[in-house]
Amino acid sequence: MKKVAIFPGSFDPFTIGHESLVIRALELFDKIIIAVGHNAQKQGFFSIDARMDMINKIFENNIKIETDCYEGLTVDYCRKKNIYFIIRGLRTSADFEFERSVGQVNKQMERKIETVFLLTSTKYTPVSSSIVRDILANGGNAKQFIPNRINIDDYLNK
Amino acid sequence: MKKVAIFPGSFDPFTIGHESLVIRALELFDKIIIAVGHNAQKQGFFSIDARMDMINKIFENNIKIETDCYEGLTVDYCRKKNIYFIIRGLRTSADFEFERSVGQVNKQMERKIETVFLLTSTKYTPVSSSIVRDILANGGNAKQFIPNRINIDDYLNK
Amino acid sequence: MKKVAIFPGSFDPFTIGHESLVIRALELFDKIIIAVGHNAQKQGFFSIDARMDMINKIFENNIKIETDCYEGLTVDYCRKKNIYFIIRGLRTSADFEFERSVGQVNKQMERKIETVFLLTSTKYTPVSSSIVRDILANGGNAKQFIPNRINIDDYLNK
Amino acid sequence: MKKVAIFPGSFDPFTIGHESLVIRALELFDKIIIAVGHNAQKQGFFSIDARMDMINKIFENNIKIETDCYEGLTVDYCRKKNIYFIIRGLRTSADFEFERSVGQVNKQMERKIETVFLLTSTKYTPVSSSIVRDILANGGNAKQFIPNRINIDDYLNK
Amino acid sequence: MKKVAIFPGSFDPFTIGHESLVIRALELFDKIIIAVGHNAQKQGFFSIDARMDMINKIFENNIKIETDCYEGLTVDYCRKKNIYFIIRGLRTSADFEFERSVGQVNKQMERKIETVFLLTSTKYTPVSSSIVRDILANGGNAKQFIPNRINIDDYLNK
Amino acid sequence: MKKVAIFPGSFDPFTIGHESLVIRALELFDKIIIAVGHNAQKQGFFSIDARMDMINKIFENNIKIETDCYEGLTVDYCRKKNIYFIIRGLRTSADFEFERSVGQVNKQMERKIETVFLLTSTKYTPVSSSIVRDILANGGNAKQFIPNRINIDDYLNK
Repeated sequence: MKKVAIFPGSFDPFTIGHESLVIRALELFDKIIIAVGHNAQKQGFFSIDARMDMINKIFENNIKIETDCYEGLTVDYCRKKNIYFIIRGLRTSADFEFERSVGQVNKQMERKIETVFLLTSTKYTPVSSSIVRDILANGGNAKQFIPNRINIDDYLNK
Repeated sequence: MKKVAIFPGSFDPFTIGHESLVIRALELFDKIIIAVGHNAQKQGFFSIDARMDMINKIFENNIKIETDCYEGLTVDYCRKKNIYFIIRGLRTSADFEFERSVGQVNKQMERKIETVFLLTSTKYTPVSSSIVRDILANGGNAKQFIPNRINIDDYLNK
Repeated sequence: MKKVAIFPGSFDPFTIGHESLVIRALELFDKIIIAVGHNAQKQGFFSIDARMDMINKIFENNIKIETDCYEGLTVDYCRKKNIYFIIRGLRTSADFEFERSVGQVNKQMERKIETVFLLTSTKYTPVSSSIVRDILANGGNAKQFIPNRINIDDYLNK
Repeated sequence: MKKVAIFPGSFDPFTIGHESLVIRALELFDKIIIAVGHNAQKQGFFSIDARMDMINKIFENNIKIETDCYEGLTVDYCRKKNIYFIIRGLRTSADFEFERSVGQVNKQMERKIETVFLLTSTKYTPVSSSIVRDILANGGNAKQFIPNRINIDDYLNK
Repeated sequence: MKKVAIFPGSFDPFTIGHESLVIRALELFDKIIIAVGHNAQKQGFFSIDARMDMINKIFENNIKIETDCYEGLTVDYCRKKNIYFIIRGLRTSADFEFERSVGQVNKQMERKIETVFLLTSTKYTPVSSSIVRDILANGGNAKQFIPNRINIDDYLNK
Repeated sequence: MKKVAIFPGSFDPFTIGHESLVIRALELFDKIIIAVGHNAQKQGFFSIDARMDMINKIFENNIKIETDCYEGLTVDYCRKKNIYFIIRGLRTSADFEFERSVGQVNKQMERKIETVFLLTSTKYTPVSSSIVRDILANGGNAKQFIPNRINIDDYLNK
């Protein structure tokens, strides 16, 4: 039976840390759906379309990767897709505290859900979407933190 | 002499974790005032009235529990009520870091204040008001995280 | 291709937390080798034989679980078995800091290794082997923290 | 009804941080038993007698403080004394992680137990028994970290 | 060669903790530029002018201290000034996690940058600008957390 | 005036992380004394002589680095050398909690002491002496974690 997982996140934007995590997670899963969470109350730095477009470009030749977006709870998205593995990366112990609460509550809401955590690679540990956004918002050069296939200027000019 | 404590918080909303904490704290104190803090700058998910109404319903037959609300500093509220025990629950080490700063600053502002911490029960450790709000905002079912006596739909429709 | 993982640890003793983790990890892997690490410099509370015997009893009818023991580095054991998924449970942020260092160093020593982390179940989060050992060393009753199939007294009298 | 609590610890030695905590806890409890835990497997820096003697000196005129020692589990000591409030101080988030596990396991072993945490005073936050022992073992002057009534040299020469 | 460092921050407002840190850092550096970061997206509690004015008052007779403000990335400000030592204070482990990410990303963007961390003094550890703002916003008395030379009322009435 | 600092530690053994930290710290200090702390109660993995010999080899042509060893408190060693800057590296938040207690207590014992913290480089963050010792004790290959100039086999065969 094929093992499929969801990698949910806001990915605003998708970083080299996320890219590295997905590639490593493909050893574990036969297919991964990268699902961009849409939060109606919170405006993002990049639009949902821009975020999905970037992810599509990064993995465009990889048939094991699918890109999607969703609104509402991750738990409900899992039920709708009938997929119960969730992938999450862990960078810092602050991350961990937050992820533990979310992961344990998700499991209390839907027993079938299993959150699988991978460590970020050593060199990408300090990189987060919020730091990348901060660099971009201040006109800095964030290229080294963004996957090669993405020309971030294309999305900033949009 | 009767021992009275204040349990301050935003309680937006009051969860099963809070309920469990108050019941256990009653072993320690003769009376507990659950004080809903009102922050003029920050609009809550539920109104102050709704939050107080929920708490009143949960403890309506318990003469050792009183519900109140306040604006301004907790330190000033303690002085006004002439009550210097503060109860707080601890869930995670992130909670702890924050509570330590607040508790030590409160004591520097008013020597009489003593913050008394209880651990959340094991099974309620991942539950927080912010996670419950997130579930409700996304149309999810949060009943298992809210005290039995509350029909949360009554407040969502208000 | 079958996915096989190693669950390494000292398991001194194996707790209900470990049992719950293995059962959940079987959703992800086709086979799991529970590998009891043997540290020549550190005498355990239970012998390696006793620890393996307990684990065998717990999973005796489960053909997807195998029990083994090893000396030396986990990295070298992975190479010997030609299995590169390692399962670890995460309870607290102190756990996390330690596991991150070990996991990242393991990956630097052997690129193929991927450590997969699962959260402990909410109710088992406070339970660790060291707490169980401490209870047993002090003549306390640790039954609720040990898998049902184990009669721990059999091993204490050995 | 009088409220009595146990303040268990190894107190090897009792520091100004412990002293400050006990004095503040007396606002909350009518009587406090300072209980020196005796661990047969671990030799202390000071003998149990020396530790109890120091604590007795510090609080010799305080009829609300009693000193005791015990072997075995704190849970069993609580049952024997029929006292179910435990006092613990919290200094750092590393402390907190450890105390949470112990406190939640204690509650699972004996429902009546309630662990009550107080923060250490700001200025005593870095002081711990292990740091004091390290200073003394290296011939340093630890007087500022030890309660005034104790002449630590009396115990080092013993 | 003179050693110069930048102490960047939002300093909204500058606290006794910051003051103590700067004075201690002067042992290490021949000159320190206190640089108030200006974030166009985020309105502060005090204006940039008020913050700089307060800092100038505190250090007005100290020729080794200079006050400045900047917009954009700290990395770019360092390049513009050709100064590559950054001073930061560490209060809590939550601080540390955040500072580590920022410091390591800064170094990846500009190899010459070296962030030098000092601990806050024990007694100022709980004091942060955000706690001081919260006290002021609620009409509380924050004088003990603000350097002596500042009459905070002058700035609140502005 | 020349700025001199002490970099104290057990360095059992000195790792690439330590080497990288010292080289970066030379931007800040004119001279650094790497001081191997000798703990009479705790036998090391390598002898003090071996540790010092390794450090001497790594920095043999660097006239700004001096190697020394000491027994007793770091505070007393600082006084003896009349040098009051201490350098320490920070890897994880567990490190930080420990270092904060030690640093604040050192300052309470000797006001002149100032501990200066640098972050480890991103790629060396998971590397610690204890992990290296563990690899060596288990016959693993730790070369990538040890400075180039050291042939660790020379010291293991001693």
